[in-house]
Amino acid sequence: MLRLGVIGCGYWGPNLVRNFSSIPNATVVAVCDIDPHRLHSIQKEYASVTTTADAASLIARTDIDAVAIATPVSTHFNLALAALRAGKHVLVEKPLTASSDEARRLIDEAAKRKLVLMVDHTFVYSGTVRSVREFISNDYLGDITYYDAVRVNLGLFRHDVNVLWDLAVHDLSIMDYLLAQQPCTVSATGACHAGETENIAYVTVFFENNLIAHVHANWLAPVKIRHTLLGGTLRMIVCNDLEPVEKVKVYDSGIELSEDPDSTRRMRIAYRIGSMWAPPVDDTEALRTEALHFVDCISNGTRPITDGHAGLRVIRILEAATKSIEQQGRPVELDRNGGPS
Amino acid sequence: MLRLGVIGCGYWGPNLVRNFSSIPNATVVAVCDIDPHRLHSIQKEYASVTTTADAASLIARTDIDAVAIATPVSTHFNLALAALRAGKHVLVEKPLTASSDEARRLIDEAAKRKLVLMVDHTFVYSGTVRSVREFISNDYLGDITYYDAVRVNLGLFRHDVNVLWDLAVHDLSIMDYLLAQQPCTVSATGACHAGETENIAYVTVFFENNLIAHVHANWLAPVKIRHTLLGGTLRMIVCNDLEPVEKVKVYDSGIELSEDPDSTRRMRIAYRIGSMWAPPVDDTEALRTEALHFVDCISNGTRPITDGHAGLRVIRILEAATKSIEQQGRPVELDRNGGPS
Amino acid sequence: MLRLGVIGCGYWGPNLVRNFSSIPNATVVAVCDIDPHRLHSIQKEYASVTTTADAASLIARTDIDAVAIATPVSTHFNLALAALRAGKHVLVEKPLTASSDEARRLIDEAAKRKLVLMVDHTFVYSGTVRSVREFISNDYLGDITYYDAVRVNLGLFRHDVNVLWDLAVHDLSIMDYLLAQQPCTVSATGACHAGETENIAYVTVFFENNLIAHVHANWLAPVKIRHTLLGGTLRMIVCNDLEPVEKVKVYDSGIELSEDPDSTRRMRIAYRIGSMWAPPVDDTEALRTEALHFVDCISNGTRPITDGHAGLRVIRILEAATKSIEQQGRPVELDRNGGPS
Amino acid sequence: MLRLGVIGCGYWGPNLVRNFSSIPNATVVAVCDIDPHRLHSIQKEYASVTTTADAASLIARTDIDAVAIATPVSTHFNLALAALRAGKHVLVEKPLTASSDEARRLIDEAAKRKLVLMVDHTFVYSGTVRSVREFISNDYLGDITYYDAVRVNLGLFRHDVNVLWDLAVHDLSIMDYLLAQQPCTVSATGACHAGETENIAYVTVFFENNLIAHVHANWLAPVKIRHTLLGGTLRMIVCNDLEPVEKVKVYDSGIELSEDPDSTRRMRIAYRIGSMWAPPVDDTEALRTEALHFVDCISNGTRPITDGHAGLRVIRILEAATKSIEQQGRPVELDRNGGPS
Repeated sequence: MLRLGVIGCGYWGPNLVRNFSSIPNATVVAVCDIDPHRLHSIQKEYASVTTTADAASLIARTDIDAVAIATPVSTHFNLALAALRAGKHVLVEKPLTASSDEARRLIDEAAKRKLVLMVDHTFVYSGTVRSVREFISNDYLGDITYYDAVRVNLGLFRHDVNVLWDLAVHDLSIMDYLLAQQPCTVSATGACHAGETENIAYVTVFFENNLIAHVHANWLAPVKIRHTLLGGTLRMIVCNDLEPVEKVKVYDSGIELSEDPDSTRRMRIAYRIGSMWAPPVDDTEALRTEALHFVDCISNGTRPITDGHAGLRVIRILEAATKSIEQQGRPVELDRNGGPS
Repeated sequence: MLRLGVIGCGYWGPNLVRNFSSIPNATVVAVCDIDPHRLHSIQKEYASVTTTADAASLIARTDIDAVAIATPVSTHFNLALAALRAGKHVLVEKPLTASSDEARRLIDEAAKRKLVLMVDHTFVYSGTVRSVREFISNDYLGDITYYDAVRVNLGLFRHDVNVLWDLAVHDLSIMDYLLAQQPCTVSATGACHAGETENIAYVTVFFENNLIAHVHANWLAPVKIRHTLLGGTLRMIVCNDLEPVEKVKVYDSGIELSEDPDSTRRMRIAYRIGSMWAPPVDDTEALRTEALHFVDCISNGTRPITDGHAGLRVIRILEAATKSIEQQGRPVELDRNGGPS
Repeated sequence: MLRLGVIGCGYWGPNLVRNFSSIPNATVVAVCDIDPHRLHSIQKEYASVTTTADAASLIARTDIDAVAIATPVSTHFNLALAALRAGKHVLVEKPLTASSDEARRLIDEAAKRKLVLMVDHTFVYSGTVRSVREFISNDYLGDITYYDAVRVNLGLFRHDVNVLWDLAVHDLSIMDYLLAQQPCTVSATGACHAGETENIAYVTVFFENNLIAHVHANWLAPVKIRHTLLGGTLRMIVCNDLEPVEKVKVYDSGIELSEDPDSTRRMRIAYRIGSMWAPPVDDTEALRTEALHFVDCISNGTRPITDGHAGLRVIRILEAATKSIEQQGRPVELDRNGGPS
Repeated sequence: MLRLGVIGCGYWGPNLVRNFSSIPNATVVAVCDIDPHRLHSIQKEYASVTTTADAASLIARTDIDAVAIATPVSTHFNLALAALRAGKHVLVEKPLTASSDEARRLIDEAAKRKLVLMVDHTFVYSGTVRSVREFISNDYLGDITYYDAVRVNLGLFRHDVNVLWDLAVHDLSIMDYLLAQQPCTVSATGACHAGETENIAYVTVFFENNLIAHVHANWLAPVKIRHTLLGGTLRMIVCNDLEPVEKVKVYDSGIELSEDPDSTRRMRIAYRIGSMWAPPVDDTEALRTEALHFVDCISNGTRPITDGHAGLRVIRILEAATKSIEQQGRPVELDRNGGPS
């Protein structure tokens, strides 16, 4: 039975409490927040949980095995580091930290202490993404040519981070999982229409072999869109996460290249329009699957799918995009050892 | 009665013939193409039209008042210049020419001869775009904050131009008409998965006052999408050109900024979710409206909405985007007098 | 503070417990079910609730003011009658009872004792339906010409009742509320493809003045549809309850009749296609609004919107439809005093 | 080369002229209408066609092999009979005639003279319907359990026929083709909100073995819907004819019955939710396929898919529905030899 403490009970924390409370082999023993109303509300619903406004005291508890952190990004590093140093396994809300340096230090600390460090890239654990991953793994799509994600809606402006670090991070973490390739260069553009942080951003991520990825994130759209296109040389996929069913559609369509008998200089392109297929997708709540995975990794000493390195890879892209967005799209290269060069 | 000659009868030319044949005050007297099958097919349907494989002879005809050109882009300039020099009014398929220099020379020639030079930015004449333009003109949306267009589908790879010059040009011409502002800087990214030209492209266009525009064009998508988001400080618009009805939706939603009593450093952001309204949209074929406008401009000596300057403005953005795309998004500034600096 | 007991904790009961627990001025003090697992699960989440397998003992408790009943239909009458006789206000899941006779006896009993008897026609309390009701009340639609509802999906076959009493009852209760008119005649058809009860049913309800209503209910459809058309002489409404937003769309469309100058025998019909408007709709959970209304009615001694008479009116239609469906659509008249004649 | 005359050039006639003009092995030689404007318009587009206001003279022409009739329903019989008697093959717009008696007389006349008599049940020739037919023929769906069609929109009120004979006829002809079974009983309801003919109608058609079909036709709906559900014991189909692609969706979903170990009295029902599959559908214009089939049948002396008997079968249902609708749904039996008994 994993005994968990949760730090941060704003928007996301209660979902952590709810999911870890409902799975077998885990129990939430303590919750921390600086807002007494939030603690009261948790206490009311989960009678057996201890509440506190002091994160240090929660981390210090010897009857807690793991800590889940759902606080503002700027506090992730210190809280996670303290928890690791106290010998706790740690799950941190996305993005893992506010910088790649911080992420590296957490990775090292966890490695040194043989503790599980996991970043809460929630969507990676959704039925939709896992289903797409399987198609890619089985080479059902052929070579991936592009990944295009749109995540827009009205709302939830944040003052501490811009739309890149808050919204695009979801798609970059999904992309990291699905493509499983190392990006080379990032170009990003955006604008700021209220407050001081970008509320609209466009990020292009270049990979080798002409693979290109693009994310459009927008806090100021009148409609909610969660739409992903994934091109492959054999088949293509469209995901629409807002559909109640048929979230993943696989298209047996594409182009076929052959030599053009009319011209030695160019290729003939033939279109192939085949059938569309929507496989059944597991609709288990992603966070439940993730919570089970966290408990599993701790029990078995295995590395989480979204370990510290996954968190770091996404932060490196965010850092590069942040740099690029300030210069209206100037490309920023990612060196092989991490971070914008 | 305007007497028209049409040069080029591939994909688009027959639409020009059909529309100019069906409006009052115009008649198509001659059609030119190098492919005899195409000419035969036109001849069969329009018995009174003369056909020829020789563009020069069509242009030389003294019984023709105007020439419409729907040939490959690389030939636009020479054909249009010859037609203007022969004293004909000219309508040219988009993009106007293959370079801004060529466009400027056509503009000068037409001005010198007091002839109408019009570029076939078809969508500008659609009921959808005209309806949106009216909302903007009446300041119904407040200040425009962003323009985001997606135009993707499977098909019609072209060998002579990339997806920017073939597909994105539509959205850039709509943007030029709707925003009616001078862009400052362009950043573009893209990739090439078949042949030698980009089949996927992302273009960001920066304007003054934080107005940002973005176009996603893709020839290799499994589904067809024609979707535009338009942000305003008062209201926002979503256009979906594939819907049979309700193509334009106006959202009375947005954010409201006020001073945050809890913090002197930041603004309080309030969300406003109001009703959605889909006005009736004129469903006249855009090319018919455009053909009527061309005839009108010639009759009344007025300047077309999509005159040579509109054509030039769009080409300048395409040239800047082309430069940027080769450098993975490096921003390219547009000087005030035109062209990438 | 209203003290409530809930009888029946299958599919629906827990929603009653949750909603009555979360509103002010009410508290759930006891819950009854014959299944100890269900009671355990409720107990776990609501620590202060008393559980019992004995409905009579719950009803007998003097510290309970009202009883909510969510048991199989066949048991509604006896439980509700016992509760009324014990001086409790009563809320009964739809349909109110298994027959109109039973419904009348409950109405009488409640009236005699001046107790609130309310039927849980949940959808009547949804933002969608209340919004439509307001349009009708304000005569925004003109005279209502037809009401057409489709409620189909795969699943939840029931053995005790057919699709009429389980699914169509929702639309008939919405219809009763929206049209607020007395039906004259019912014709129903249906079929049975598994087990012994109809899984597909079509019900036509005739009113005076050519107003017609139709409900299509189906347990064996591959897709879920919740779609309602409402015709008016001035405007028309389409509701789609599965849309995340824009559930109610008001169309300023219709026909206009005038004398036909070409023919004295017939009217000229002109079509009017205007704009579409989607008003913002309150998305409070319907059952919460209903729970508040129940508490209100008890406090203020007012009659619920969905009182016993509403329950009876719907049952009369269900009885008539049941009779008609057995005779392949033979029309069954409803007399003015209730029940099929 | 089949030489065709077309009688009637209102809404539908020009489509017949266009399609028969564009296929090989057929040519339209003469067109008849009482309105000179319509004839002029046809003449303008098809220079070689002879026009006349006199149907008899067209029918009398010896250089014509076949006649296509697209006039008001009440005139179908006389025109078709005259054409058959003049030795012409005949294609008649739906519904074949205004009564089953008339239909039988045409069938007999054609049989006697060994001429092709075909009814223009256009949708039967669409890629969508042919694709569904193939699934049924290959027993891919298992036993068909129900057929549910919705065909509603705003517009085209007709004075001569009601919505049954004008709109529902489409679905009844599709149903006749797809189910290929003899109906037993019809129950129909409807209402009339303008003029003297029903503008909204609901038709239930009962077959043997619990197969049930239902058509909802409505001229007074604010939105256009073309939606069909087809239930099978193995799989189910949803058709949406307004989708630009994916018009046919096959759902590998259903229920499975087994003996319920908890109860000897009833069956256990298990739900099966599998994948959805949208096969590519031939998008050839249905009328073109039909025109080719008409020419083929004449050339090869074969019986058309939609022969006179198909026309008669549909009319018998329309007659029964007409009878039933007048009596608010009273079931009308169809005897085995045709016609309502």
